[in-house]
Amino acid sequence: MRTITLLTDFGTGDYYVGAVKGTLLRLAPEARIVDLSHDLPPGDVETAAFVLAAAAPAFPAGTVHLAVVDPGVGSARRRLVLSAHGQRFVAPDNGLLTHLLAAGTVHAVARDDLDLPAPGETFHGRDRFAPVAAALAGGLDPATFGPEITDALRLPIPAPRCEGEVAIGRVAHIDRFGNLVTDLPSGWLPAGRAFTLTCGDLVVVRRARWYEEIPAGEPAAVPGSLGTLELSLRDDSLAARSGALRGTEVRLRLG
Amino acid sequence: MRTITLLTDFGTGDYYVGAVKGTLLRLAPEARIVDLSHDLPPGDVETAAFVLAAAAPAFPAGTVHLAVVDPGVGSARRRLVLSAHGQRFVAPDNGLLTHLLAAGTVHAVARDDLDLPAPGETFHGRDRFAPVAAALAGGLDPATFGPEITDALRLPIPAPRCEGEVAIGRVAHIDRFGNLVTDLPSGWLPAGRAFTLTCGDLVVVRRARWYEEIPAGEPAAVPGSLGTLELSLRDDSLAARSGALRGTEVRLRLG
Amino acid sequence: MRTITLLTDFGTGDYYVGAVKGTLLRLAPEARIVDLSHDLPPGDVETAAFVLAAAAPAFPAGTVHLAVVDPGVGSARRRLVLSAHGQRFVAPDNGLLTHLLAAGTVHAVARDDLDLPAPGETFHGRDRFAPVAAALAGGLDPATFGPEITDALRLPIPAPRCEGEVAIGRVAHIDRFGNLVTDLPSGWLPAGRAFTLTCGDLVVVRRARWYEEIPAGEPAAVPGSLGTLELSLRDDSLAARSGALRGTEVRLRLG
Repeated sequence: MRTITLLTDFGTGDYYVGAVKGTLLRLAPEARIVDLSHDLPPGDVETAAFVLAAAAPAFPAGTVHLAVVDPGVGSARRRLVLSAHGQRFVAPDNGLLTHLLAAGTVHAVARDDLDLPAPGETFHGRDRFAPVAAALAGGLDPATFGPEITDALRLPIPAPRCEGEVAIGRVAHIDRFGNLVTDLPSGWLPAGRAFTLTCGDLVVVRRARWYEEIPAGEPAAVPGSLGTLELSLRDDSLAARSGALRGTEVRLRLG
Repeated sequence: MRTITLLTDFGTGDYYVGAVKGTLLRLAPEARIVDLSHDLPPGDVETAAFVLAAAAPAFPAGTVHLAVVDPGVGSARRRLVLSAHGQRFVAPDNGLLTHLLAAGTVHAVARDDLDLPAPGETFHGRDRFAPVAAALAGGLDPATFGPEITDALRLPIPAPRCEGEVAIGRVAHIDRFGNLVTDLPSGWLPAGRAFTLTCGDLVVVRRARWYEEIPAGEPAAVPGSLGTLELSLRDDSLAARSGALRGTEVRLRLG
Repeated sequence: MRTITLLTDFGTGDYYVGAVKGTLLRLAPEARIVDLSHDLPPGDVETAAFVLAAAAPAFPAGTVHLAVVDPGVGSARRRLVLSAHGQRFVAPDNGLLTHLLAAGTVHAVARDDLDLPAPGETFHGRDRFAPVAAALAGGLDPATFGPEITDALRLPIPAPRCEGEVAIGRVAHIDRFGNLVTDLPSGWLPAGRAFTLTCGDLVVVRRARWYEEIPAGEPAAVPGSLGTLELSLRDDSLAARSGALRGTEVRLRLG
């Protein structure tokens, strides 16, 4: 049984998620449907790209991921099928696959014979993306959808870098607990080294291995679950306390 | 494997959804459980009726839909089994099936031998509706539950109509993006025709095929995913900007 | 097909739930994954303990419940496997299993060969708990994980009691509808008996069998779905109106 995961910004109080699930089960009756998230901020492609790339590696080979955060629905933006890590990813060409592109090959969907008849152009998740995901779950070769491309849209997210003695990154994500997930590899902060890390007005000089190790009321840098440093408070939201946002610059100086 | 979908107003932070799922899996071990939504506004039967009717057509024949938005739980309101489109619907007789009644036949549940022993009358979703859905998923004939009825409760929702040169409808639903989903068929607004559409204080004179086609800051009428017109802003919530509510009258004049 | 349920405080807008599901499906490809809830208040072990104990009895024997509300992730707190009611429960040793401990036997996980390689200590749900749940779903005997223990942590929740003519309990839970779920057995309030029930500033003297039976604007005691009394308003949140909180004392005097 193939698994199809769903990642959308459709919310869970509407009919959209149900209509996509129904379409998938109608077209791929044996598939297993797994919700990744439907509560992404509406239209927030960068959060969708982060969550998809963070969750997908846990899944087995053969999994099909259907990701629809698609403010450009109906426009000329392409539909993409990415093959990477033995998995398939179906998404609009709007940057949603940014973090995964380097690991695989991308085909643009150039056929419309799988498209469902639809009364409008506002719900391609149901009418155009779900049929592609269902066909992939049924074993269809990605190459049959259209040509391989190399110009898929990438979000302009800078990579972390070193300038002299300072490592410079950014807040890549803020999680539901208010942790600031940075893009600085945890290995850039060796255990036992003194350091100063700044993030906006925030100054962090402590390191902790887990949240309970953080002294009450003081922020700390914690090696996180994706291999990068998180900035965190114990039992509180550092995002709320610090005002840091996704994209806020992070500077790390060892010393 | 039969699919049982769940549509409730139980929320997702409580034990209610889990208890219904567990009961279904205990009574129908082979069933596949699919969440439609649990985040409907508490007690909002009209939203539930809308979401159910909008999502159900996507599902394959044989699907059983269990819909429990039931502020009258425990009272004498009946339990209904609707057969329509090759699917089964289980719901309280409170209007939840309004949009589907014309398409099928309804039986009122008149037997109590499937009811589970319960310490109270506040959770019929678990104790009385789930066993009916499980039995239907197991293939039980709806006629064995009780007599066919023709007086199922319908919500008093007016149909869209024409008065002279004006088409009059209403906001049938407000979606998570703040789009005003009307009940006016998209075909009533032919492409290329000038028009004026009013909805409360809102005046709409533009048409767009999809959201990105909408000029920034201006509302537009968009042929939506259910075959009716939506009123929308680009990248913003028209519901929040306009103050329109579900039920607000919509008037469309061509010319 | 074994069922693995998930109960977490991870929220549904992040990658955490997806990563746990992916890990389970990678390690137990035949398992069925069922969401109980991911929207528990962050770090609220008592709510998690309540919801788990309330939902689990509905599930069939053989079900594996994975419950991760774990503010002490990474610290020395143990991982537990509880066997009760023919089901298995996997949780941190922080009180999450409080209401279930008396019904079964507990083993502490003493082996680390199932642990997944991880870049940090902040996501044991994915890296250390999910492998245990997957192994249990595959049929592994709980005794192979480690020694049976009898000192699992219990939350210090007092049991309801009688002092002279007064029954004293507490608000055990506030549900999504604002009902105050007490721990007083419904049987302690016999039908037909006059009574006075106080809860903070709230005074309740009416009894109703279901919510629609409650007179508009007046609170009532209702025999709830878990065998205990609930305090409720009709079509409104008594929690919001009364200011009662979880833990607020409840006093019942018959008379």
